[in-house]
Amino acid sequence: MKPLDVLSDLLDNQVMVRLKNGMVITGKLKAFDIHINLVLEDASFQDGDVEKKFKHMFLRGDMVIFIS
Amino acid sequence: MKPLDVLSDLLDNQVMVRLKNGMVITGKLKAFDIHINLVLEDASFQDGDVEKKFKHMFLRGDMVIFIS
Amino acid sequence: MKPLDVLSDLLDNQVMVRLKNGMVITGKLKAFDIHINLVLEDASFQDGDVEKKFKHMFLRGDMVIFIS
Amino acid sequence: MKPLDVLSDLLDNQVMVRLKNGMVITGKLKAFDIHINLVLEDASFQDGDVEKKFKHMFLRGDMVIFIS
Amino acid sequence: MKPLDVLSDLLDNQVMVRLKNGMVITGKLKAFDIHINLVLEDASFQDGDVEKKFKHMFLRGDMVIFIS
Amino acid sequence: MKPLDVLSDLLDNQVMVRLKNGMVITGKLKAFDIHINLVLEDASFQDGDVEKKFKHMFLRGDMVIFIS
Amino acid sequence: MKPLDVLSDLLDNQVMVRLKNGMVITGKLKAFDIHINLVLEDASFQDGDVEKKFKHMFLRGDMVIFIS
Repeated sequence: MKPLDVLSDLLDNQVMVRLKNGMVITGKLKAFDIHINLVLEDASFQDGDVEKKFKHMFLRGDMVIFIS
Repeated sequence: MKPLDVLSDLLDNQVMVRLKNGMVITGKLKAFDIHINLVLEDASFQDGDVEKKFKHMFLRGDMVIFIS
Repeated sequence: MKPLDVLSDLLDNQVMVRLKNGMVITGKLKAFDIHINLVLEDASFQDGDVEKKFKHMFLRGDMVIFIS
Repeated sequence: MKPLDVLSDLLDNQVMVRLKNGMVITGKLKAFDIHINLVLEDASFQDGDVEKKFKHMFLRGDMVIFIS
Repeated sequence: MKPLDVLSDLLDNQVMVRLKNGMVITGKLKAFDIHINLVLEDASFQDGDVEKKFKHMFLRGDMVIFIS
Repeated sequence: MKPLDVLSDLLDNQVMVRLKNGMVITGKLKAFDIHINLVLEDASFQDGDVEKKFKHMFLRGDMVIFIS
Repeated sequence: MKPLDVLSDLLDNQVMVRLKNGMVITGKLKAFDIHINLVLEDASFQDGDVEKKFKHMFLRGDMVIFIS
């Protein structure tokens, strides 16, 4: 098994993505590539007291710490 | 589906781009490449109280956190 | 022997991963690749007083300092 | 259209380049490459109260945030 | 002679590795690759007053400043 | 014209190199490569009140912001 | 002439290497490669009031600002 196989298993599942700048983004994983670029559907994150929501989000892979 | 396909779907649409330095830039997505270099039309961002506007903006991909 | 051979030996073993942002994550090593992307099973880390737990965690290799 | 095509359109035009260290440099775009290395003619930037001017400036691409 | 030849000479010897985050790790060098990924045996470092010890440590090359 | 052609034109001329850490180094440009690694002859920079001088200086390209 | 030719000329000579973290290391240059990985013999640097000395030092190229 390779790490990217685990991302395949997570497709269409709800994931939590922690970024290098401290942001934590949740959403449904719709796509990824070898750079760990991600597409999340119905993504959201907390910005202070506000929950920001996005129908589709393209996330650049080099910002990712971990995906769970 | 691959992440870049989602960027293709966003072409000619209004997007929000969040950058690693905290800037949030909005505009119409006119072009992108595999480095996530972007071209935005009628781009703008808040600089303190001032909204800065640009007819065409070339944005370097390695500054991008997410596009929505 | 090459460094990645040591990671092969660690497969299915409990490991400690120290990240560049100071986080220390423990879990069972299930997969790795040449970028040192990792998959940990039953991963956990301390977030202040709280221990956060994750059934499966994909960890991006460029955040790793060391694995032991 | 690809992002670099937009840079081609900007050749011999006055551009504004914002850098990762906060500097904003203006000048006439004379050349670029795929790394976004740039050459500006009659380039200038504000250094405190002083406007610094340069007949020709080679600018390394990895410092660029955006070009407009 | 190339720099990696010197690392070959250091195999099975006690080395000191200084990392970009200020950590200094000592141990017996058991393996390395062209990315300067290292494996140390009986590795240790000071964490405040505590000496932390590790039977085997995989160290990611991009954190290395120097090895001696 | 490509950006590196401008560096060719600057060979054997006095140049000013601004680095990412704020240093400004002047000297005669004797060589460069595609990584923007540079060789300067009779290079100097200000270190507080002291002007430091170097007969030959090899400068790593990834530190360069601009050359003029 | 290319920049690496200058490093060839410096082989077996005493050099000063300034690193991105502010360290200045001196020693005899014994080897280098295209990544600017270096080997110094009888290397030393100031650590506060103490001069630290190393018989052989492998120095990772991506930490180098300049060599003189």
